[in-house]
Amino acid sequence: MTSQHNTRLTALRAALAARGLDGFLVPRADEHLGEYVPDSAERLAWLTGFTGSAGLAIVLAGRAAVWSDGRYTLQLAAQTDGALWERLHVTESPPEAWAKQHAAGQKIGYDPRLISADGLRRFAGVDLVPVESNPVDEIWMDRPAPPQAPALPHPEIYAGEAPAAKRERVAKILSEAGQDAAVLTDPASLAWLFNVRGADVEFCPIALGFAILNADASAAIFMAPEKVPAETRAHLGNAVTVEPPGALRGALAAMAGKTVRYDPATQPVWFKTTLEAAGAKIAEGGDPVALPRALKNETEVAGARAAHLRDGAAVTRFLAWLAATGPAGAETELSAGAELLRQRERGELFRGESFPAITGAGEHGAIIHYRVTPESNRAIRPNEVFLIDSGGQYFDGTTDITRTVWIGPGTAPAVVKEHVTRVLAGHIALSQAVFPEGVAGAHLDAFARSALWQAGLDFDHGTGHGVGSYLSVHEGPAGISRQAKPVPLQAGMILSNEPGYYLQGAYGIRMENLVLVQPADFADQKRKFLRFETLTLAPFDRALIEPALLTPDALAWLNAYHARVRAALAPLLAGEPAVLAWLEGATAEI
Amino acid sequence: MTSQHNTRLTALRAALAARGLDGFLVPRADEHLGEYVPDSAERLAWLTGFTGSAGLAIVLAGRAAVWSDGRYTLQLAAQTDGALWERLHVTESPPEAWAKQHAAGQKIGYDPRLISADGLRRFAGVDLVPVESNPVDEIWMDRPAPPQAPALPHPEIYAGEAPAAKRERVAKILSEAGQDAAVLTDPASLAWLFNVRGADVEFCPIALGFAILNADASAAIFMAPEKVPAETRAHLGNAVTVEPPGALRGALAAMAGKTVRYDPATQPVWFKTTLEAAGAKIAEGGDPVALPRALKNETEVAGARAAHLRDGAAVTRFLAWLAATGPAGAETELSAGAELLRQRERGELFRGESFPAITGAGEHGAIIHYRVTPESNRAIRPNEVFLIDSGGQYFDGTTDITRTVWIGPGTAPAVVKEHVTRVLAGHIALSQAVFPEGVAGAHLDAFARSALWQAGLDFDHGTGHGVGSYLSVHEGPAGISRQAKPVPLQAGMILSNEPGYYLQGAYGIRMENLVLVQPADFADQKRKFLRFETLTLAPFDRALIEPALLTPDALAWLNAYHARVRAALAPLLAGEPAVLAWLEGATAEI
Repeated sequence: MTSQHNTRLTALRAALAARGLDGFLVPRADEHLGEYVPDSAERLAWLTGFTGSAGLAIVLAGRAAVWSDGRYTLQLAAQTDGALWERLHVTESPPEAWAKQHAAGQKIGYDPRLISADGLRRFAGVDLVPVESNPVDEIWMDRPAPPQAPALPHPEIYAGEAPAAKRERVAKILSEAGQDAAVLTDPASLAWLFNVRGADVEFCPIALGFAILNADASAAIFMAPEKVPAETRAHLGNAVTVEPPGALRGALAAMAGKTVRYDPATQPVWFKTTLEAAGAKIAEGGDPVALPRALKNETEVAGARAAHLRDGAAVTRFLAWLAATGPAGAETELSAGAELLRQRERGELFRGESFPAITGAGEHGAIIHYRVTPESNRAIRPNEVFLIDSGGQYFDGTTDITRTVWIGPGTAPAVVKEHVTRVLAGHIALSQAVFPEGVAGAHLDAFARSALWQAGLDFDHGTGHGVGSYLSVHEGPAGISRQAKPVPLQAGMILSNEPGYYLQGAYGIRMENLVLVQPADFADQKRKFLRFETLTLAPFDRALIEPALLTPDALAWLNAYHARVRAALAPLLAGEPAVLAWLEGATAEI
Repeated sequence: MTSQHNTRLTALRAALAARGLDGFLVPRADEHLGEYVPDSAERLAWLTGFTGSAGLAIVLAGRAAVWSDGRYTLQLAAQTDGALWERLHVTESPPEAWAKQHAAGQKIGYDPRLISADGLRRFAGVDLVPVESNPVDEIWMDRPAPPQAPALPHPEIYAGEAPAAKRERVAKILSEAGQDAAVLTDPASLAWLFNVRGADVEFCPIALGFAILNADASAAIFMAPEKVPAETRAHLGNAVTVEPPGALRGALAAMAGKTVRYDPATQPVWFKTTLEAAGAKIAEGGDPVALPRALKNETEVAGARAAHLRDGAAVTRFLAWLAATGPAGAETELSAGAELLRQRERGELFRGESFPAITGAGEHGAIIHYRVTPESNRAIRPNEVFLIDSGGQYFDGTTDITRTVWIGPGTAPAVVKEHVTRVLAGHIALSQAVFPEGVAGAHLDAFARSALWQAGLDFDHGTGHGVGSYLSVHEGPAGISRQAKPVPLQAGMILSNEPGYYLQGAYGIRMENLVLVQPADFADQKRKFLRFETLTLAPFDRALIEPALLTPDALAWLNAYHARVRAALAPLLAGEPAVLAWLEGATAEI
């Protein structure tokens, strides 16, 4: 492995020298700058060996470095060769500072399709030059072909709104802002806007492509024509053209004099420079699809409720199975994940997992982004904590649920129960929140943490993220986090509610349901209020809850939730007496 | 009045025409752009008649308009002449839009000493030209002289740190940022940095002036020399020069080639343009004194505690008096305010009120910024709600307290008690907050509102503001509000905790204590946590509290707070048996 990456690094340096470049940036990114990167764009992994979901390398003639964040410190060290690469932490030793120190006066290349305008701005003071073609691709002989899964229509019985109506709505946002068009680079935005779904990447049913939406509601999609069958073309209608990716540059060049919306935070800088070179005027603004996509319509809400019923039944079957088999010590993180997937596969409209399940037994649960591999897989042992965070993609909705379970046969130590109950108290406090319009998730985040804070405890991740409708399980623009831009919550948004607590080397705790933002009705109301409807339906493990640590209000919420779970799921589990019996016990009043 | 303002407007138009200007901006501001404006700078009030604390006028040849915000809608209409002025709401009909519509192609003057760079930027697209001298001053014949109160040393027994040490600390902020100097335009920053206090404006012991602080910790103060007696010059030492205000321009002009810190949000644009014209480089950044000033040292904290003891005794005497005399219906808003001031004046080190007391009987309490006048003054009637928000300036600290009182002899209606108790529940929830470093007031604001939100209620002001140490009762940089920039709370900050509820035409409720941010200690702590220590000491009116609406935790907090108030104040009230007896009852366990 080392000699292979040595060879690749040497080849890249030769390619750079041949182009007259002193160095090159290699981010972990594709041309959409999103979470999902197809194998054909995994240049960083190919070059360095590092497979984490966030990273960057800078290659100079005499030295090279690779960065990631705290989640990946160990993995970065394990997967890369310290003789070839300095392994650095992105906030502690920022790449821009490293570049200023080691590449002063040098000409560093970058691929403008793989970095945003804001990302590039961070390197102000470094002599960066864009390249037309990526020099990594030139030396990557066995580079996989880009994915070619078909983009198929997403039926209106699931989407709830015709694509023409969606285009009209989003086009109005543009025309009201005095903009002639917007470039769309997020495949999830294309999926929502045109009611299409694909299979180009794992876990998220997107078809990779770009689009230009005009203020008159016409649009052009840039996608390999062989990915767009006749049925999809018919579905798209006459106001939408489909052109090959290579036609994108020409289409941008034809926008001279037009005002085009572009998001410097999330879109490749290539779009900006190409438009500006063509004489178009850039209007900075976020993806105009992001907010409309986040506000689920009635059909999507009904679909989400239905998907969560099936998903809850699958999770409940899994939990009953784990309660029965877990204490024997014969199951593993992998076998548990496989069992849950088997149960989900029994549900109608199931399309696959919405992300790689996190199945953390004991100390593995404290690794927030743990992903089990055959090498890391370990037994689920009696008398320990087991965390399972997983989700499903269904035609009618996307799910994401975390449960933390005590594996018997013994009883859980008091300190574990205290930690779990403080996490649960935060989960419940957020579930019960009522708040006026204008309030953002950043303002509610403290509700989910207060019970932990009172004991000097906290968790190092956001409390909640947006969730798509048979789309990405991580969706903007709103979130529940102090770090996020404060986007006001609005009715129709689906978000996760997932406080946690992690004791390094011992166990991890996370309690996650998805919630739907709903209007809250009060008599004689001067302003509009909102509340959360919990969508997820599965018991929290009573063996880990210390009722004395919950307020009477919180306990009442828990009992009402469990009663609702029992009533909702029982009909789906009617033919399974063992599961039903377990559910009765798991949801009994405390 | 109308003919007077007509004459002034006509004279201004003539003065503008003589200068070749088509119009002029008249903001309610002095050269410090702060809350406190001396009479000599009340140009807006002189020109228009409007005396509110926030406003702006634009005068064109053929039309003129004056703006304020929702607090002042009625006052603006009452005090100005609709035949002369369009009266507009600053966010509903923004002045910049009005100017674009009515002054297209016209040359509008502005005084660059009375508007910030950010404020000016809002008018992008309007042809604005700076003036050397303000044309209002040219026609304002009986303009008062600028205040000339002496700037006196603030002894180190109150300030807790020598000014030389403070200058060293702040200068280090500049040198570490690569800046040669900072301009200081907030008189409260001068007061803190140099340990001086003045009496140029009401309610806040500042001496109006400017300063330049250099990165080597030397400084120049620009202030009328007759305001700076020999004693103060000696106190300032050799590293600080005092120069007349007229020397400021020359001092800025001498900074060619230097990097000078300037705050575009709070400092007059005149500083920026003068520095840039001189060849200095602007480094945008907030007032470097703001954060150090907010972090009270041990002496200031001890002073705050001592001042709050005396202030609490005064408020308690007042509340006992009101309980005895109020139900007879013979007192008024003015007489109540006067009585409280009398009680404060009995306290040691008292220097005056920290702001004009808000004494709102019945429906007046619902006017959030109500300021009683002889015309508006009304009786405090039996069986109604009375709100009193007031504060004191003491050499050792600044106080700010609001109590909402039921005036007997009857009992309060259940709905009033419910509203009061929900406000109190929010006050207590915020008082009890524990949170990690990094959390800002914006993230805690919801704690103070949640009990109201649960009933579909809210209040339209921030929950808390910073408070100075024998300085401004409104101080940055931190606050407790969703609107504020999220500045992390730090130990040593003093903030108000003042949720409220306002029922138009009926009553206003506000519960305000000052709190000090303190470290919260936990065993085996991986990160630092903070909590609030309540400084204010005075009972909340038990007659308005419905205990059944408080959680057991909140009720325990209230009883512990009342026990603390009783124990702390009893020694100060030893010679006053009637007050003591009232205090016993007012703080009895619920």
